[in-house]
Amino acid sequence: MLRENGEGKWIIFAPSIAPYMKKHNFFAGPAILPAPVLEQAAAAVSDFEGMGLSILEISHRSPQFVAVLNEAEALVRELLGVSDDFAVLFLTGGASSQFFVSAMNLLNEDQTAGYIDTGAWSAKAIKEAKNFGGVNVLASSKDGNYNYIPENIEIPSGLQYVHLTANNTIFGTQFAEFPETDAPLVADMSSEIFSRRLPMEKFGLIYAGAQKNMGPAGVTLAIVRKDLLGKVKRTLPTMLDYRTHIAKQSSFNTPPVFPIYVSMLTMRWVKAQGGVEAMEKHNADKAQLLYDEIDRNPKFRGTVANKASRSLMNVTFEPVDEADAQPFLDACEAAGCVGVKGHRSVGGFRASIYNSMPKSSVQALVDVMKSF
Amino acid sequence: MLRENGEGKWIIFAPSIAPYMKKHNFFAGPAILPAPVLEQAAAAVSDFEGMGLSILEISHRSPQFVAVLNEAEALVRELLGVSDDFAVLFLTGGASSQFFVSAMNLLNEDQTAGYIDTGAWSAKAIKEAKNFGGVNVLASSKDGNYNYIPENIEIPSGLQYVHLTANNTIFGTQFAEFPETDAPLVADMSSEIFSRRLPMEKFGLIYAGAQKNMGPAGVTLAIVRKDLLGKVKRTLPTMLDYRTHIAKQSSFNTPPVFPIYVSMLTMRWVKAQGGVEAMEKHNADKAQLLYDEIDRNPKFRGTVANKASRSLMNVTFEPVDEADAQPFLDACEAAGCVGVKGHRSVGGFRASIYNSMPKSSVQALVDVMKSF
Repeated sequence: MLRENGEGKWIIFAPSIAPYMKKHNFFAGPAILPAPVLEQAAAAVSDFEGMGLSILEISHRSPQFVAVLNEAEALVRELLGVSDDFAVLFLTGGASSQFFVSAMNLLNEDQTAGYIDTGAWSAKAIKEAKNFGGVNVLASSKDGNYNYIPENIEIPSGLQYVHLTANNTIFGTQFAEFPETDAPLVADMSSEIFSRRLPMEKFGLIYAGAQKNMGPAGVTLAIVRKDLLGKVKRTLPTMLDYRTHIAKQSSFNTPPVFPIYVSMLTMRWVKAQGGVEAMEKHNADKAQLLYDEIDRNPKFRGTVANKASRSLMNVTFEPVDEADAQPFLDACEAAGCVGVKGHRSVGGFRASIYNSMPKSSVQALVDVMKSF
Repeated sequence: MLRENGEGKWIIFAPSIAPYMKKHNFFAGPAILPAPVLEQAAAAVSDFEGMGLSILEISHRSPQFVAVLNEAEALVRELLGVSDDFAVLFLTGGASSQFFVSAMNLLNEDQTAGYIDTGAWSAKAIKEAKNFGGVNVLASSKDGNYNYIPENIEIPSGLQYVHLTANNTIFGTQFAEFPETDAPLVADMSSEIFSRRLPMEKFGLIYAGAQKNMGPAGVTLAIVRKDLLGKVKRTLPTMLDYRTHIAKQSSFNTPPVFPIYVSMLTMRWVKAQGGVEAMEKHNADKAQLLYDEIDRNPKFRGTVANKASRSLMNVTFEPVDEADAQPFLDACEAAGCVGVKGHRSVGGFRASIYNSMPKSSVQALVDVMKSF
């Protein structure tokens, strides 16, 4: 294709093709995306839908992008079984912004919300919510450096909502089941959205930064039960009121066009794989392959205290002998397994094996462990 | 290059090359980007810096992306002459979020800020600021449906800051000079950042959504004078406190990786063209070419009341005979000139001719006008 070169000359514009390579991407986020998604994303940067323009330079009100937004919303609804009682929004600011936006929209100063503290992200959500109303920390696994998910949590009635972090990227724990509660659940699902079927009837709000299971960094999904909104007494800045974005279908102002597009492509891919039910099986298979090796191999041990709390998304483990740490990371790197180093706050190893991670890549890591 | 296809097979991954085409992109935003920037952006989606990974799937804490962030900040400083008295931040939420974030960080309830009302965006900024402190509207061009920039504005002393919208995308007006004031200026420069040299000593805060002159949608630049921060009494949510992002160099949470990368590439391109001084000349040349034709051609007239208020970024005009409106847009389309329709709130025509727009494209539009 031809494009103007900025000096009045038309030049041949051909994205260069990178040389042969083969990487297994275990980064925790931003994280692996499916190859066909990346291929289409690169093509859309060159020319989107035959418009003769890049997707990076078209109006967010063009029919072509409005179609992307519509399809993205429809895919969220279809993949997770989201009814019209909920709005589906594509926002910015990450889950870190939702920590306070959720409380600002749902919690009055004289009301109390319950929070379950299972890691660094839960703790941040608790800190931000305290600026807006009462916070009752219902359970915490901080005593074990967050290496388990609390069980049999006693949840009083009268709470506005109960907040939890569904999957803990840093500590490698995950709620296998969601607690029973009278109040609607508010859940940070950044690192597990679309990885398993959800009992939507339990939720008042689900939010997720895209950059783990949904797309590239730069967009945040929010699925919010509409009847919970408009009940707080405080004045909300226009951009922080979920109702603003509901009324304008996520286009009150310019939305993050490209991150939404790539997220839509990723959801299309999830659907083509058989939807969330297929992902659930795929993710359980991959996790079992890796946990089995961790449990079998005398050189490694898992860091989560009980098997029921183990994450299917972020598999955390460590060397039995600390002297093996760097040599193992070197062996991973040599085999093309990148991003296996644990979070800087906990050390050890972490293999993030989100939806887009093929089983063959997990096998590649297991092979490194076996021959180490 | 080879990538896993999600089913354990390695496939050849080659972004498809679009067929021949030639468009002149006059969209108001998201808007035209330089061809070499789009080429590099597409290549980075395939493989970033020879990592064997797409830029969409790498950690924001990888050395490769930290280098991008560092270069982006250095380029902002170099292009605009920004000293260390200011922080340079890459945020999200658009200028629409900065309308309230700026007031929230800079204005106490018992203080007053001055606002100059020159269009829809100014009016929104005023509305949001009123939730945080006193607002003194120093001047407004609303009486003329915002078709001019107020002159000789009387600015009292004692204001915390004076806010203005430097360029008005919808109405096609622009401050040719910035008002003299004791208080620091706070300016929304979304549609003109990097288009001209700035007297930085006048500013306390400059903010800009990227999607017009800086990059694709999804990142917001903020340049803030550090000594103005930390003085408000209210509790700020962590994510809304500029100091949070200053302390973590825009990586307190996951930043919008790809929009920042493409913005950095666009700034590199501006620098290669000769910097902001060269852009200033380039933009003046292009605007003159188009305004000259508008003033000469009896079929068209400009919509801005006086020439001193005319924008060099968004050239607004209309047909003398309303019956010519659709035929002219059709003629533009036939000549590959897209996005010439005026904003839905005002009608008429609008040619957005940002930094990346080559003079040859403006000439193409002028040719359509001449032969119409």
